[in-house]
Amino acid sequence: MFGTGLLMLPPMAIEDRHPSFLTALFTSTSAISVTGLAVVDTPHYWSTAGLVVITVLTQLGGLGILTGAALVILTVSRRLGLQNRLLVQAETLEYGLGNIRRLLLHIGATVLACEALMTVVVTGRLWMAYDYSLGGALWSAGFHSIQAFNNSGFSLYPDGLLAFSRDPWITLPLAFGSVVGGVGFPALFEAVRQWRRPARWAVATKLTIWGSVVLVAVGTVAFLAIEWSNRGTIGQYAAADKLLAAFSQIALARTGGIEVVPPGAIREESYPLLIWLMFIGGGSASTAGGIKVSTFFLLAFVIWAEIRGEPDVTVGRRRVATASQRQALTVALLSVAIVAASASLLIAITNHLPVQTALFEITSAFSTTGLTVGVTAKLGDAGHLLLIVLMYVGRIGPLTLGSAIALNTRRRLYRYAEEQPIVG
Amino acid sequence: MFGTGLLMLPPMAIEDRHPSFLTALFTSTSAISVTGLAVVDTPHYWSTAGLVVITVLTQLGGLGILTGAALVILTVSRRLGLQNRLLVQAETLEYGLGNIRRLLLHIGATVLACEALMTVVVTGRLWMAYDYSLGGALWSAGFHSIQAFNNSGFSLYPDGLLAFSRDPWITLPLAFGSVVGGVGFPALFEAVRQWRRPARWAVATKLTIWGSVVLVAVGTVAFLAIEWSNRGTIGQYAAADKLLAAFSQIALARTGGIEVVPPGAIREESYPLLIWLMFIGGGSASTAGGIKVSTFFLLAFVIWAEIRGEPDVTVGRRRVATASQRQALTVALLSVAIVAASASLLIAITNHLPVQTALFEITSAFSTTGLTVGVTAKLGDAGHLLLIVLMYVGRIGPLTLGSAIALNTRRRLYRYAEEQPIVG
Ligand SMILES: [K+]
Ligand SMILES: [K+]
Repeated sequence: MFGTGLLMLPPMAIEDRHPSFLTALFTSTSAISVTGLAVVDTPHYWSTAGLVVITVLTQLGGLGILTGAALVILTVSRRLGLQNRLLVQAETLEYGLGNIRRLLLHIGATVLACEALMTVVVTGRLWMAYDYSLGGALWSAGFHSIQAFNNSGFSLYPDGLLAFSRDPWITLPLAFGSVVGGVGFPALFEAVRQWRRPARWAVATKLTIWGSVVLVAVGTVAFLAIEWSNRGTIGQYAAADKLLAAFSQIALARTGGIEVVPPGAIREESYPLLIWLMFIGGGSASTAGGIKVSTFFLLAFVIWAEIRGEPDVTVGRRRVATASQRQALTVALLSVAIVAASASLLIAITNHLPVQTALFEITSAFSTTGLTVGVTAKLGDAGHLLLIVLMYVGRIGPLTLGSAIALNTRRRLYRYAEEQPIVG
Repeated sequence: MFGTGLLMLPPMAIEDRHPSFLTALFTSTSAISVTGLAVVDTPHYWSTAGLVVITVLTQLGGLGILTGAALVILTVSRRLGLQNRLLVQAETLEYGLGNIRRLLLHIGATVLACEALMTVVVTGRLWMAYDYSLGGALWSAGFHSIQAFNNSGFSLYPDGLLAFSRDPWITLPLAFGSVVGGVGFPALFEAVRQWRRPARWAVATKLTIWGSVVLVAVGTVAFLAIEWSNRGTIGQYAAADKLLAAFSQIALARTGGIEVVPPGAIREESYPLLIWLMFIGGGSASTAGGIKVSTFFLLAFVIWAEIRGEPDVTVGRRRVATASQRQALTVALLSVAIVAASASLLIAITNHLPVQTALFEITSAFSTTGLTVGVTAKLGDAGHLLLIVLMYVGRIGPLTLGSAIALNTRRRLYRYAEEQPIVG
């Protein structure tokens, strides 16, 4: 809200541009929710002061999510009497104020360290290999590092990172930050602490880490196969450059929303792929949105157990509680319903936007991905309001819902007789 | 297979039409799976002999499904040690050969009685109020009654029942048969036997009966609201006729696939409505397809329980077994995956069919509904093969999967430690 007011001030936009309330609201919502959808051409609309505000909002939004979600998970775990190895050292099971402060400092320091590392590498490359002054390189590198790590999709260039799509010194550091931020700290801390013994990771960590690896790998291969000969995207690149561009597009755009290839030029076969990846999103308590990697793969394990006739759902020698299965089901199906209803509404509002385009933009906003096929600016005020609501719902919805569900467990003094209806 | 050969014989088509193998295969698959999708203009392509073959295939297909599914449910129930009040009188819990023969005879007699009743009413109306000979009226009434009861979508008229859309004497008997056949016998027998005490119905019966009522009511109201002023469909009708046409369209087309209003003229807002209704389909062990009404509403109850924080999922004072919840989840999510993948494939095959159209035709085939927006004939050989596969999969898939899942329960001699990952 404060960001909206700030962005409406005259110095925030270039010369004769006067941001309307809705434009400022959309942009600040997009920044604070680390989505990155834009209704205006970011670099040609906002002044440097405006871009700094966007950067600060993004960083605050990202830190708020990372720390807030970590606290929510800690609280829920404590209330459920669960030992949360993901966030707190196994030996310090007391969740005292000191521990919480240490956790938040740990998160903040990791964020700054990652962003600094990314900025240094990208600044060096821009300064040495391109026609940038040191200051210009630092500004661009810092801006995009913060955007990438926080999985937000604003860019200083109208076509995203297209100009650097074949430069691994630019795309790989940003992709690294995007993946790290998109995995989230609960899984990341445990994976780093126990990197020698991945078999001992908690179920949520295993699902998130291996799931993210699978999604990026499958996404890269599928994108490569679909776009291989598309001259509008990677068709004219050498084979190694195609691989680099496809990998960084998937790593950066899947959850972050920074484009590496022109999104308006991708083949229609890439739409369902990207919609599916955006809908799944990143890790729990990460800067990425969506229903979460762990939710998706947990459901896959449920189905697999069901097909094999296993009485329990097991992930790496651990049995998954029925409560978690029901939570995953609820989050996934409610999200499907929200996306489907919103897409239908957007189609009605916009007088017949193509279905795949509507699904793309809606999923992008709901999963706070910020990827677009280039129609965001044309959706009209009602369409923009819908996207604003979806960005808020998508940002705070799934975790709030999940934790509310986990906490709000009623105890029954009696149980009804059981029945086993046959379905299908 | 036999039907395919039969339909390729010269006397089956009109004069100079020579059905290709694929056309015959598609039509016989469509008839035996009681779908009703057509690649040719049925009345202007097949001779009377061909139409009789289609009728016989439809009736055999419908009876096969009704009896086969009833036997599967009986077998599964017995293997699970469940008492199946749905199919067998509560007092006769022995599933001897005599009981099974009695059950099959009961089903067959009910089918014939319903179809005869429908045929009599429609014949009388066609003979008296329209320009039909008695023989012509009987043929048309019998054909459409068998199609409607078996929830198959072939018609003797190129535009379905459009000419009768304002005649309750025609549409209501057919809608009645379609709904009865689409509810299925397990639920129907129990509902009829215990009609005074609906609170005592089994969970599956409650979900199927009340769920069907809700779906038809919601579908009718939504269709009425969307199409109210659409001059291509019901816009020019009087209010009462609008209601009649909307109700019979939903009752007949939701699972049966017989059109009452021109399907090519419906508004785009009706697409998601009809796709959603087709995907859900009808009752278990009915002539309708889809993931089944009970599957859909069971998942709704799971989500509702989850949101309210109830430890158990209860439906009308009965606790639903976790195994049933997992089965419903598996059937629903695998079906979503099949439809999404098939729609993407169809779009690729047909060189960019609009997404909503592809989803419509794929869902129609997979749910064996047979409703079309008029493009079935134009999908090409590869598209037709895809639809043929989907009709088979959709017909035998969900129940086979569900019962295989229910039967294939492994016993474990040990269990792993439980974990409760937090999702969302
Ligand atoms: K984003
Ligand atoms: K049908």
